[in-house]
Amino acid sequence: MDSVPGSVGTCASFALRLGQIILSSASLFFMSLGVGFYSYTAFCFLVTVMGLIIPWSFTLALLDAYTILVKCSIHQSGILLVIVVGDLVLSILTLAAASSSASIVDLLLRADETFCPQRLCSRYQISATMAFLSWLLSVASSLFNLWLLPAL
Amino acid sequence: MDSVPGSVGTCASFALRLGQIILSSASLFFMSLGVGFYSYTAFCFLVTVMGLIIPWSFTLALLDAYTILVKCSIHQSGILLVIVVGDLVLSILTLAAASSSASIVDLLLRADETFCPQRLCSRYQISATMAFLSWLLSVASSLFNLWLLPAL
Repeated sequence: MDSVPGSVGTCASFALRLGQIILSSASLFFMSLGVGFYSYTAFCFLVTVMGLIIPWSFTLALLDAYTILVKCSIHQSGILLVIVVGDLVLSILTLAAASSSASIVDLLLRADETFCPQRLCSRYQISATMAFLSWLLSVASSLFNLWLLPAL
Repeated sequence: MDSVPGSVGTCASFALRLGQIILSSASLFFMSLGVGFYSYTAFCFLVTVMGLIIPWSFTLALLDAYTILVKCSIHQSGILLVIVVGDLVLSILTLAAASSSASIVDLLLRADETFCPQRLCSRYQISATMAFLSWLLSVASSLFNLWLLPAL
């Protein structure tokens, strides 16, 4: 069976996972920097989701690296199903968190300066953008693996 | 080829589409009732997405009804692909709109009464809930059709 580029155990998948780790960490970093995020439910949700997606992507990046180095195949329907479902659930949570945070940032930017100083709001904005980009990579990973699933 | 329950042209699909129309219309109704939604970007986004999902679901409900009555099969990969992609895109937009609105409602409920009177905020809350339920049905439709796609 041909391996789909981007599915688990390929170099493209490893690159996608690395991208997810970097973007999620950046999102978490910019959100936590001001330590003011706990006043807003949406920001707390974003921090929680980013805290979930980082270890998940890290584990799968290690799995990809191991598969590439040892050149063994881990294309078993059980493992792939767990990866697809995990990726789908995490991508849904990431999208929800990113759009909630983006809408709150939009509201804060229009409101008074006392609610959110310009410097702090820009950080929140960058964090929401990073979360959106991380969602795109997560969906890509999920779709590539889903494409492979019926063939197993 | 066996038809998957919930895929296009079945009674379950017709029921899902009807549910989507009812929930999206209810969400649009509760959001537009107060006419104060245009002050918030997230609420405008929700209204736009609900305005897209209603005609889409209505068209597909008509297609389902026609297929059930005439007892013909419309299982062609081209049509199914358009339906799956349309459903996926609309469900992503619905989830983004619903979570943005929910986060804004949460923020408004904590803020001063002058920003959002209790009666108005409850309407927004109901609207966001309906949008979430509509998203669930939309994802279900999309997954049932996606399941059928590789078999064609």
